[in-house]
Amino acid sequence: MARTARAYTNIALIKYWGKKDKALKLPWTSSLSLTLDKFYTDTKSTIIDNDHDVVYLNDELLDDSSSLRIRNYLDVVRKMYGFNDHLQINSTNHVPLSAGFASSASGFAALAASVNETMNLNLSNKEISILARNGSGSATRSIYGGFVEWIAGNSNETSFAEPIDENPDIDIVLLSVVISEAEKSISSTKGMELSVKTSPFYSNWSTLVASEIIKIKQAIANKDLQQIGEIAEHNALSMHALTLSAQPPYTYFAPETIRIIQIVKTLRQQGFLAYVTIDAGPNVKIICSKQSVKAVKDYLDKNVQNVSTFEAHIGKGIQYF
Amino acid sequence: MARTARAYTNIALIKYWGKKDKALKLPWTSSLSLTLDKFYTDTKSTIIDNDHDVVYLNDELLDDSSSLRIRNYLDVVRKMYGFNDHLQINSTNHVPLSAGFASSASGFAALAASVNETMNLNLSNKEISILARNGSGSATRSIYGGFVEWIAGNSNETSFAEPIDENPDIDIVLLSVVISEAEKSISSTKGMELSVKTSPFYSNWSTLVASEIIKIKQAIANKDLQQIGEIAEHNALSMHALTLSAQPPYTYFAPETIRIIQIVKTLRQQGFLAYVTIDAGPNVKIICSKQSVKAVKDYLDKNVQNVSTFEAHIGKGIQYF
Repeated sequence: MARTARAYTNIALIKYWGKKDKALKLPWTSSLSLTLDKFYTDTKSTIIDNDHDVVYLNDELLDDSSSLRIRNYLDVVRKMYGFNDHLQINSTNHVPLSAGFASSASGFAALAASVNETMNLNLSNKEISILARNGSGSATRSIYGGFVEWIAGNSNETSFAEPIDENPDIDIVLLSVVISEAEKSISSTKGMELSVKTSPFYSNWSTLVASEIIKIKQAIANKDLQQIGEIAEHNALSMHALTLSAQPPYTYFAPETIRIIQIVKTLRQQGFLAYVTIDAGPNVKIICSKQSVKAVKDYLDKNVQNVSTFEAHIGKGIQYF
Repeated sequence: MARTARAYTNIALIKYWGKKDKALKLPWTSSLSLTLDKFYTDTKSTIIDNDHDVVYLNDELLDDSSSLRIRNYLDVVRKMYGFNDHLQINSTNHVPLSAGFASSASGFAALAASVNETMNLNLSNKEISILARNGSGSATRSIYGGFVEWIAGNSNETSFAEPIDENPDIDIVLLSVVISEAEKSISSTKGMELSVKTSPFYSNWSTLVASEIIKIKQAIANKDLQQIGEIAEHNALSMHALTLSAQPPYTYFAPETIRIIQIVKTLRQQGFLAYVTIDAGPNVKIICSKQSVKAVKDYLDKNVQNVSTFEAHIGKGIQYF
């Protein structure tokens, strides 16, 4: 009986923003993330005597439309590894939407690892990372713990993640600040496409990412949390600059996003270590030190309504049990 | 007795963002504006038998520190035109800060025109535009009415404004939406400097401005308000993209700025003609048609607290009386 695979979510400190190959999910630039504890997906797969795949999410059977992305992904996996069996997938998601994290990173990482187990593919972590990428770009990085780089590459075989430091002795806390915002924003896939095709600044984004990856790896080696925070904040806001300069312009920022950015700046002026990073949505993640996180949470509680915070720390790579 | 000079404020549709010569206020790029009615400065100057200049603003004598910028400017003017007389300046400002406009554009345009009158310099409008630029970059454009281009140039003599259409038959209304935001933001001079020196996107900004000036002039010639609005909104938000990508990143946006951007997008989806433009502060200006302005104002009144709106239309160039 195959083991269950567990994969954790990750937060990009140097953002993945733009695909150069949509089908293979090859990115225009490398990216770099921190794998987080607490938010994860558990996935088990079983060979079934059936002509199509069956997917259970949180113990509920998904209908054809809800399971389409996963079934299409399994078609890709079958083609890549030359088997014909259909699978039953049982997945349990511990990445609540309400915590401000997407579940595709941990979801496709756990699924790739689980299929490797069940089908006895004997894949290396590098190969599991490639397999996960074919499901979702950010899943590439969730194979490893700690700080992880996704090397852009230029083909299916050369685009995969590598661990930078799986067990870093760095005093880092990630505080997810979740904003109650009804407005449905543009999907990250659509947002990336608009930025790549229409932002006059996109060509400079590629150059910027290359230099910031070198800098943040040095900061990680130096265990310099302030440097890590500065680089991550600049990279995230530069990604959002691409959306403002797209044609037509758009933004993922909600009014409260700006409020949280202002607060983090105020807290820094008061001497607390805190930097923002923001993905394709209104929520803000705050990079803190263990020392500063309580002050940051207290300040938010006192000064902002309608937000909730979730604390995460350095997480591990794929686990099996 | 010299006449009083009146100059109106202007709103940049293609922004001036970055100086290549601080002393001469030579910009890195050309820019393009609409001169507005309603908000203006009236200035009279008189030769006085005194060894320093005296400045009255709104009938109050300015102290040495408050009048410093104007006195320094008059030193520059004396040097440029080789006279030694000192002047008494009487200026009345009809550009309330509360309406969301800076008064330096109309202020230095009226002052330049007034000194030309009083000292019988017999300057052409082009020369007055150059003289105004030495006081404040945006004042360069307030010499003319309607749509005006400030040609960047590369020396004191080659950087001046030119009228594109002083009396355009275009159905355009500018709605200034003023946000009550206590937070003091970074000055435009400082903001420009940071963007030029540190944004990885600044080199592409210059290319973008050059192409958007050509496009918006075509849209003005075609009396195509929708095109004018689209180009102006994209240009303004791209300017703000430069602040987000500066090192360290910063933003002029307040939470309410985002709220107004969202509202303008919603109104567009409902079929109303409305586009935003934003300068170095939290306030938003909305480019409307005469037909859409009432709906836009009503929507803002109903949906946003703590904002006030001011309506402006196409204004004239320098007037004397």
